Amino acid sequence: MTGPLAALLTQPLSVITAGVDLFPEALRAQGAEVEKVHWRPPAFGEPAELSALAADPRRVAANRTATERILAAGAELVAVRPAADALGIARELFLHAGPPIEFDDVSGPLRGALIGAALFEGLAADPDEAQRLLETGRIRLEPCHHHRAVGPMAGVTTASMWVSELHDPINGGTAFCSLNEGLGKVLRYGAYSAEVIERLRWMVEVLGPALAAALARSGPIDIKSIVAQMLQMGDEGHNRNRAGSLMFLRDLAPAIAESGGSATQVVEVLRFLGGNEHFFLNYGMPAAKLAMDAARDLPGSSVVVAMARNGTDFGIQTAGTGDSWFTAPADIPEGLFLGGYGPEDANPDIGDSAIMETLGVGGFSMAAAPAIVRFVGGTVPDALATTRQMYAITVTENPTYTIPVQEFRGAPTGIDVLSVARTGILPQINTGMAGRVAGTGQVGAGLVKPPQECFENALRALAHATRA
Amino acid sequence: MTGPLAALLTQPLSVITAGVDLFPEALRAQGAEVEKVHWRPPAFGEPAELSALAADPRRVAANRTATERILAAGAELVAVRPAADALGIARELFLHAGPPIEFDDVSGPLRGALIGAALFEGLAADPDEAQRLLETGRIRLEPCHHHRAVGPMAGVTTASMWVSELHDPINGGTAFCSLNEGLGKVLRYGAYSAEVIERLRWMVEVLGPALAAALARSGPIDIKSIVAQMLQMGDEGHNRNRAGSLMFLRDLAPAIAESGGSATQVVEVLRFLGGNEHFFLNYGMPAAKLAMDAARDLPGSSVVVAMARNGTDFGIQTAGTGDSWFTAPADIPEGLFLGGYGPEDANPDIGDSAIMETLGVGGFSMAAAPAIVRFVGGTVPDALATTRQMYAITVTENPTYTIPVQEFRGAPTGIDVLSVARTGILPQINTGMAGRVAGTGQVGAGLVKPPQECFENALRALAHATRA
Repeated sequence: MTGPLAALLTQPLSVITAGVDLFPEALRAQGAEVEKVHWRPPAFGEPAELSALAADPRRVAANRTATERILAAGAELVAVRPAADALGIARELFLHAGPPIEFDDVSGPLRGALIGAALFEGLAADPDEAQRLLETGRIRLEPCHHHRAVGPMAGVTTASMWVSELHDPINGGTAFCSLNEGLGKVLRYGAYSAEVIERLRWMVEVLGPALAAALARSGPIDIKSIVAQMLQMGDEGHNRNRAGSLMFLRDLAPAIAESGGSATQVVEVLRFLGGNEHFFLNYGMPAAKLAMDAARDLPGSSVVVAMARNGTDFGIQTAGTGDSWFTAPADIPEGLFLGGYGPEDANPDIGDSAIMETLGVGGFSMAAAPAIVRFVGGTVPDALATTRQMYAITVTENPTYTIPVQEFRGAPTGIDVLSVARTGILPQINTGMAGRVAGTGQVGAGLVKPPQECFENALRALAHATRA
Repeated sequence: MTGPLAALLTQPLSVITAGVDLFPEALRAQGAEVEKVHWRPPAFGEPAELSALAADPRRVAANRTATERILAAGAELVAVRPAADALGIARELFLHAGPPIEFDDVSGPLRGALIGAALFEGLAADPDEAQRLLETGRIRLEPCHHHRAVGPMAGVTTASMWVSELHDPINGGTAFCSLNEGLGKVLRYGAYSAEVIERLRWMVEVLGPALAAALARSGPIDIKSIVAQMLQMGDEGHNRNRAGSLMFLRDLAPAIAESGGSATQVVEVLRFLGGNEHFFLNYGMPAAKLAMDAARDLPGSSVVVAMARNGTDFGIQTAGTGDSWFTAPADIPEGLFLGGYGPEDANPDIGDSAIMETLGVGGFSMAAAPAIVRFVGGTVPDALATTRQMYAITVTENPTYTIPVQEFRGAPTGIDVLSVARTGILPQINTGMAGRVAGTGQVGAGLVKPPQECFENALRALAHATRA
């Protein structure tokens, strides 16, 4: 025997073991040197699927390309205009959050929001008529995600509403999002009372035009830069948007003041923006959408490009599987409740806002926002540990979105379906909680994870794509 | 022998030792049970002084009263008006930061600021004439602190400048501070070029009146609440005031827009506030001054109520020693430099802004603002460790000013001269750095501590007061 193998046998040998302690103990008892390796079997997935995906020679390079595009993506707010113009949608087409859904299957908050939108659009005179139009399919439903858009909670976006248009100057993408209504009794949480509809009208008549005029005067606003800064200022960009909303107000306030609106309207708009700590969420979300859309359609990549919930199902999409959704029934978040509400009042997980976690902020960057635990529950050490854990299921770290308390380590970025299957660690999402009953509004905020089944289904499809 | 002592001798005995290891080792060698106590001799102070102060029966209660007043103090911004009205100062009386100083002893940045102020007030036509007026005593100097005021860096405050007036509704105090000019070439850093004087004129003509009118419309602004919130948003309130400045802008922007100024002036003011990340420092400082002034004049208390620097000397005052200053030559901060500047360009420590640390924010709450290390130098673990260390020299914790990453532990509050002497731990201050040469402006930002001599002198005076 010659060569490396022969050399091996002339040196002292040691044994590497993994798994149960029985083997290393037996070996040690016989005087052998034993090195224990920490290894656990994959948490889920068929062995054939796991090995097919792991062995796919395209995977590493495709995942690298996916995350390079995600990290490089820019996000500039370039326009605010009616959804009819921006998205080219007819009045009878209502967009909603999450994967596709039939009206028969919608949960309370999405039903409430759809009813409210029908009233707001003047398609129905009352909730009963709205319900009939929705049941008979006279009003059609499609996901925001199918129109390059995202919407928080119910995410209902209709032709008359004004939306923001964001542009990615690096990858060339475009994304849209509605304007944020504030908290409490609002359409996106399923409320549709008169005050909700009245606020939506004011947003069309005053807020949208004021923002559009101000933006035309100020020029594009760099949303990516604000997201980067908010992570230095105690926001995680999903359930804490305080600093982000303040920076947005700062950037646009002078242009709002000089944009030619009446003094009363200028004051109204400044008050509305100043009074809404979540206004920036609706800019962070399309910024995240731009980054994740840049990674779509990369055969061989196992990176998640969308996580979204319609209040009934949770759906994910991956870079390697085109427009397919991998869905499973959504869980109910655990967290803190407003006023007299409790767990029995909460609807299952809803909204496109999990696009923030898909990008690596929100729940993934909780360590940047320890004060978030006062809003979503849990402890500060939990928040720090959650971010550390997310590195185990992501491909890379974001050098622009950094977390000060982690000595400026970049946010964990690029969820890898294979890593989720191997570790059994599911993505952590911070989220608002809508009332289960249509018309209620927000009942709390909390923490939730996607059902493992979404990842099992995605794994199967990715494995199948390698064999194709 | 009866009673407790007798009972003691019937039980197994163990020995408590402190100091060098020789004794416990010798005892252990003889089979005795030994408990080592961590104890170090006091770091400084004469034994007679230390024991006199420690034994003063008034001390514990007086320190408790001092910190109760500090913690209870409120801070509402109630007015913005010219210093001549607010402080009742003549045009020839210039206020400055730190303890009292003669013009012959002033350092470059304070000299530059005094010259600039003489030009701004129209008392001198050029820097030479200004210098003569200062040398001959035609322009007199007094500390801001002697007029219930504080000023950052040089702190020069003169009759024509507009100042903010803050009120403490709990303890009844009033405090004043100038308006913040922004960064770079500004009077408070010793610059006095034409642009500096021109900005000061604009602040008198436009900014001051606009803020006054807006405040009259909005009603008092709760500065204490903003300080509490900024600590949840990555600011430490001395060298990071980003979130605080944004919240101040948010609170006042609608009232600025409707306060009746011309559209151009409204836009100018919104731009100036939005472009100055340190604007809020000049509200945090008088809020801290209010809290610390509430603890003044409590015989027997060893709590520090002011730390201030005039660019030559560092001075401290305590609750138990009235208006006495305990001074020593100020050190030069260590930190990060702007542009081509280096350590040789830095002036010794200057400014009343150490009132923030006296209150327990700023350097004491660095753990709330890990991103500060990018501005003042050091590492994130250093920042976290600094806050932990400050608990060793403070009497209590502030339940309103909490630090999220420390699981909302309150800021270390009430520096105790006796604890400083016992531990040798000096207060940590974050500070800006002025150029040594008059007219330069800011050269950097960094970390600095008071000279130990200030505390040695304060300890002596406090000990003497116990014997009186």
